[in-house]
Amino acid sequence: MKISELSRRTGVPVASIKYFRREGLLPAGRATAATLAEYGEEHAERLRLIKALTTLGGLTIAATRDVLGAIDQADSTDGALGAISYALPVPVVSQPSADTDEEERADAAARAEVADLIAAMDWQTPDTSPHVQGLAAALKELHRLEAGYAPGELAAYADLARSVARLDLERAATLDDPVALAERAVIVFAICAPVFELLRRLAQEDQVRRRSARDATA
Amino acid sequence: MKISELSRRTGVPVASIKYFRREGLLPAGRATAATLAEYGEEHAERLRLIKALTTLGGLTIAATRDVLGAIDQADSTDGALGAISYALPVPVVSQPSADTDEEERADAAARAEVADLIAAMDWQTPDTSPHVQGLAAALKELHRLEAGYAPGELAAYADLARSVARLDLERAATLDDPVALAERAVIVFAICAPVFELLRRLAQEDQVRRRSARDATA
Repeated sequence: MKISELSRRTGVPVASIKYFRREGLLPAGRATAATLAEYGEEHAERLRLIKALTTLGGLTIAATRDVLGAIDQADSTDGALGAISYALPVPVVSQPSADTDEEERADAAARAEVADLIAAMDWQTPDTSPHVQGLAAALKELHRLEAGYAPGELAAYADLARSVARLDLERAATLDDPVALAERAVIVFAICAPVFELLRRLAQEDQVRRRSARDATA
Repeated sequence: MKISELSRRTGVPVASIKYFRREGLLPAGRATAATLAEYGEEHAERLRLIKALTTLGGLTIAATRDVLGAIDQADSTDGALGAISYALPVPVVSQPSADTDEEERADAAARAEVADLIAAMDWQTPDTSPHVQGLAAALKELHRLEAGYAPGELAAYADLARSVARLDLERAATLDDPVALAERAVIVFAICAPVFELLRRLAQEDQVRRRSARDATA
């Protein structure tokens, strides 16, 4: 199909398709003339995934390139899952490195809090994991805001997170072909994160309304 | 304190403090001379909250202004919770409106899926809620990617989301002063969302590693 047809089929504007081509996210079409290229079903599929990652998933172009690279290099289903897990951007900005004694103590306390949690949950995650480091940075910021978790609170959230991750793995790991599984895993891990957040916001809204109704009749 | 001391205390650069002042996020200090202002503890607190919302929470300046406005106008604790719940940005980009029959059918199917879920969960959330609309848009995109939820899967996630929201409300709604409670709610609702996402990513990582280890010894 021509680029105009590819655009119509996927809902991605022609200018965006050309941009994704230049940025190396989308493979070249088959050249049919100096300025014409023929695109296939695989381009439409890849384009839908790029669109989903950059809009629903909120990924930058650079992060999208990393994730697509991990998908294409997947040579076993578990390898694909592991690569995807690390290629997805960590949902917290990195913190500036500690440059005072006070900052260093806060860093160390947050790292210890994460290590204690991981030990208590019996999670097999190395200290070098971006998720371990991201969580330590987040907890440090929360302490700075005097909004740290009370003892047991973080573990209660972690228990629920484990149940959510079990559902995620069941949804993600049902395919045998590594590339197809990696694509599915990207969708489940990256794009379904906003879905869970929306469900949580709906449930918060419901509980706020119930509180108001209860207070009004009290 | 002078602006330089305010910067040192909060870790926010002087240029950023001036920017937040210009954007109306931070109240003026008490003028002590034509070019000098004196800042107080309330400025340091507000600045820490702005920093947390824009970095950890990932909020834009405009969204941060809306949230701070909702905090300052809170006149009851339940009113504050409701306002915060709606002021926080919805974690999904808005979709272009349907302009073909096919798009309209997909829209209607996604809205029906959300309505069924809300009825099954007995959630008190109106159709006009940004979270209802955001969830419908997300489900529509997932269907387009042929990655919709199987029957029962979405409800399983919603059950866990309700448990997470219960923990959130317990953490958020412990204060009596509306403004203090609104600040706490912003921290719990906006800034702790990345924490749960990190816990979920850690749990996913753990389960991927266990799968690999199991397959290696099988």
